[in-house]
Amino acid sequence: MLAENDLQLAKSSYTFWEKLSPEQQAYLAENLYAISYKKGDIIHNGEYSCIGVVLIKTGGLRVFMLSSEGKEITLYRLGPQEFCVLSASCILDNITFDVCVEAEEDTEALLIPSAQYHHLLQQNIYAENFTYALVIDRFSNVMWAMEQLLFMRFDKRLAIFLLDEFSKTGNPRISLTHEHIAKYMGSAREVVSRMLKYFAGEGMIEMSRGGITIIDKDKLRELTI
Amino acid sequence: MLAENDLQLAKSSYTFWEKLSPEQQAYLAENLYAISYKKGDIIHNGEYSCIGVVLIKTGGLRVFMLSSEGKEITLYRLGPQEFCVLSASCILDNITFDVCVEAEEDTEALLIPSAQYHHLLQQNIYAENFTYALVIDRFSNVMWAMEQLLFMRFDKRLAIFLLDEFSKTGNPRISLTHEHIAKYMGSAREVVSRMLKYFAGEGMIEMSRGGITIIDKDKLRELTI
Repeated sequence: MLAENDLQLAKSSYTFWEKLSPEQQAYLAENLYAISYKKGDIIHNGEYSCIGVVLIKTGGLRVFMLSSEGKEITLYRLGPQEFCVLSASCILDNITFDVCVEAEEDTEALLIPSAQYHHLLQQNIYAENFTYALVIDRFSNVMWAMEQLLFMRFDKRLAIFLLDEFSKTGNPRISLTHEHIAKYMGSAREVVSRMLKYFAGEGMIEMSRGGITIIDKDKLRELTI
Repeated sequence: MLAENDLQLAKSSYTFWEKLSPEQQAYLAENLYAISYKKGDIIHNGEYSCIGVVLIKTGGLRVFMLSSEGKEITLYRLGPQEFCVLSASCILDNITFDVCVEAEEDTEALLIPSAQYHHLLQQNIYAENFTYALVIDRFSNVMWAMEQLLFMRFDKRLAIFLLDEFSKTGNPRISLTHEHIAKYMGSAREVVSRMLKYFAGEGMIEMSRGGITIIDKDKLRELTI
């Protein structure tokens, strides 16, 4: 049985709620499931799964592309109150690509499975419209990531990445290996290591086993301008 | 005054036509303009223009990203009967990026200007839905381009394959169907066809019945590096 506050969250987040008929509202409520993921869980993996639309309560998801050689490119991250819609890409005819989604932290969420969500979309154009708008938000995210990747100097990208991590946790200590950072940034470990060494040389960061500490935030920030 | 066949084309292409009220249909028809572009014309340039939704009659458009340093990345191409919707990105709240659009050939098209198109979107959810679906089609195009750019796998393999065939026979004409090439490369026909179409768009090859002709060997070779 779904908790009352979960239903309230769904009602306020699925803004087409008021446009649903009473039957459709009941259908949505019946097909809403509370789910949990452990940090590192793969939620969606290309075409081999299509669980449905995920509304994040706590935690966070990372959406990325995976090449046949295992190279990863992070497209965007999603946090509380955000929807993961590409995990239901199979029900959207005009999406011909696939992405992977992993839980970056322990995550609590509400799921509407693909088949049931599809049923709603077919019955209610406001639901369809809402879903399309979500996809277009993600298109904007992807275009931003693409600009970063294709046009931005790597020092700038890495500085932005480190400052983002800092602002997420409020901790100047970033407990990620060079390997991990490279993976998140769609780069190679050597490229990351070289640039971090340069940053350390400039007195912006300090490197230690398994992590990095930001010691001059302002100087790092100058790189991002 | 708009030609009758232009109006017919608009009616059959804007598939929400039947969902418009008689007043909305009249409004659309009144705000439909026949326009022409010369090869090389820039139709849309980032945030500095937002002409509206363009329905191509003849010719073709190229949509690309432009870095601050002038580097271009082709995202996709559009041909007859296709819509250019990102040239109206300013009226879509959830599009936060901008692209450039140029006429790759002399192009004849039908335009609904942004302000008038926006008015329709606000009045009719089917029009909005149609437009969102167009944007999502383009999202799929962009993801494909991104995969090619970032992972550079299949284009390289296919370029190597074509150049190998060339050097085997000394003939730039390669008399193999897409099906055959896919079989030789352990790929799928659609994947081969899509990539050959891209190569043709880039001026590297020409496609004809039952074969391919390499027309720019050097450009094709660049892909293999």
